[in-house]
Formats: sequence, C-alpha cells, structure tokens
Amino acid sequence: MINTITKEEALKRLKRIEGQIKGIQKMVDQERYCIDIINQITAVHNALDSVALKVMKRHIETCVSDAIKSTDGKAKIAELMDTVEHFIK
Amino acid sequence: MINTITKEEALKRLKRIEGQIKGIQKMVDQERYCIDIINQITAVHNALDSVALKVMKRHIETCVSDAIKSTDGKAKIAELMDTVEHFIK
Amino acid sequence: MINTITKEEALKRLKRIEGQIKGIQKMVDQERYCIDIINQITAVHNALDSVALKVMKRHIETCVSDAIKSTDGKAKIAELMDTVEHFIK
Amino acid sequence: MINTITKEEALKRLKRIEGQIKGIQKMVDQERYCIDIINQITAVHNALDSVALKVMKRHIETCVSDAIKSTDGKAKIAELMDTVEHFIK
Repeated sequence: MINTITKEEALKRLKRIEGQIKGIQKMVDQERYCIDIINQITAVHNALDSVALKVMKRHIETCVSDAIKSTDGKAKIAELMDTVEHFIK
Repeated sequence: MINTITKEEALKRLKRIEGQIKGIQKMVDQERYCIDIINQITAVHNALDSVALKVMKRHIETCVSDAIKSTDGKAKIAELMDTVEHFIK
Repeated sequence: MINTITKEEALKRLKRIEGQIKGIQKMVDQERYCIDIINQITAVHNALDSVALKVMKRHIETCVSDAIKSTDGKAKIAELMDTVEHFIK
Repeated sequence: MINTITKEEALKRLKRIEGQIKGIQKMVDQERYCIDIINQITAVHNALDSVALKVMKRHIETCVSDAIKSTDGKAKIAELMDTVEHFIK
C-alpha cells in the first residue's frame, strides 16, 4: 500500500509529468523540431520510470513483505515478476 | 518536419496520454493497488513509444532524407542516432 | 541463492545465448543484411531478459524473503531496486 | 552494408560479449550472488545496444541513404522503423 510520503511524492511527480505532456502537445502543435520532441518524450519516459520504481519499491516493502511473512509469498512474487516483465518490454 | 496527418495523429494520442496520466494521479490519490498503478504506467510508456516512433519516422522521411539528398546527411544521421541511443536507455 | 532447477535452466539458456552471439559474429563476418543482424541482437536481448527475470525471481524468493523474515528486509529491497533501475536503463 | 571499420569494431565487441556470456555461465555455475549475475547481464545488454546502434547507423548511412537517393526510400525507412520498434520493446 502506498504510504503518505510515497503518495505525495508520486502525485507531485505525476503533476510535473502532466505538465511535460502538455508541453509536448504544444511542441507538436507548433511543429517544433522532431528531435526536440523525441528528447522530451525520452524525459517523460525517465520520469515515469522513477514513479514506477518508487511504487514498486513501496509495494515490495508492504504487500509482498506481508505475504512473505504470513505465507511464502510465492503468489505475490509471481505477480510482481509478471509486472516487471511487462514493464521492461 | 511534422506534416498534418502525423501532427493530428500525435496530438490525439498525446491528449489520450494526458488523460491516462490524470487517471494514474487519481489511482495514486485513491491508494489503489500498486500493481495496477505500475501496469497503467507501462501502458503510458508504450503509448509514448508509439508517438516517438511516429515522429522519428516522419523525421527520417523529411529532414534526414533532405540532408541525405543535398549532402551525405552524416550530421543528421549522427544526431538521429544520439537521439535513438538516449531514447532506448 | 540459485537452486538446482533455476541453475540448470539458466545455464541451458546461457549456452543458447552463447550460440546466438557466435551466430551474430558469423553474420557480421559474412556482411549479412544489417536489419537481420539487428533483429538477431533483439532476440538475444529478449533471451537475456528472460534469464535476468528468472534469477531476479529466485533472488526475491530466497535472499530477499529471508531478509524480510529476519529483519524488515529494507537493505535487500533497496539493493534489489537499484539493480532493477540499472537493468531497465 | 557493413564496412571494414564497423565490421572489425563489431566483431571485437561481439568477441568481448561472448566472453561476458561465458563469465555469466561460470557465475551461475558457481552459484554466485544473484544481484552480481543480474548486473553482469545488464552490462551485456548495454554492450549489445552499442553494437546494434553502430550497425543501425551504418545501415542508415548506406542502404537507407541509397534508397532515399534513388527513390523516396519509404520502404527502407518503414523496414528500419519496424526494426527500431522491435528493438525497443
């Protein structure tokens, strides 16, 4: 479960990402240089990775850890690995 | 240079991505299941890739092609490859 | 710690990857079509991802799980997340 | 088409990658720490990316450029973009 610090941090970053997406829309609308547009998309990519990694870390520290303590956690670990696999493709 | 079709298509996709980002903000705010949040981020990732690839294709068809026709295009190709390298990391 | 099944499976896959790398060397040496070479590199990429994900899963099921059970596992989780971050870049 | 410099460079890097793969096999066989194995896989990943980017650059400088000069190059650009898309997934 997301805690207060991760939540505030994630929301702040997602707000910034929303602003970056709007910025890219403006760049496309103004027919700015393609390379600059792609570099901006790369920046959003990296910003999204950061959010995903923070949420994933928090998930392992809470849900996955709880499952490991109460049972062996195998189902939660399998679910996590499916998500990581999906994420890296 | 982005042409009218690529532009409209890219703007439509970027609007949808903006909506997805707002959806993720809501998921974080409502403390939804971490795995669902990460999977949504993966979806935005893939959507951004699509936009970047479309812009890149258009860039090669226009700017890079023009440079190749008028000179050897080496500078434009080097710039493109730097962008691809940056993008895949 | 890697167990017998993961180990045999990983070694089998790594042997196949070694063969694929040798195949790419031959393709380069024979000056085969660039696109075919890149597609072969993509195939090795995906094969390596599979091995890394299997090892990572096993690591969470053993080392990380043990650390979570005996303490809170925070150090092991932080180490894992650094590795994931490094891996996806 | 791969030229002599790209070819020698690529072959040298692929030889090094083959050595790294053999090193990972040894690590797995010796049941070394999972995190170290994954980090080695990440290193091979990055080395493969470098080879792919070099081959791709060379491909654009030769085959794609020739196609752009003689016709519009649209088929070669489409083929290139499919390869990039496949590569980044």
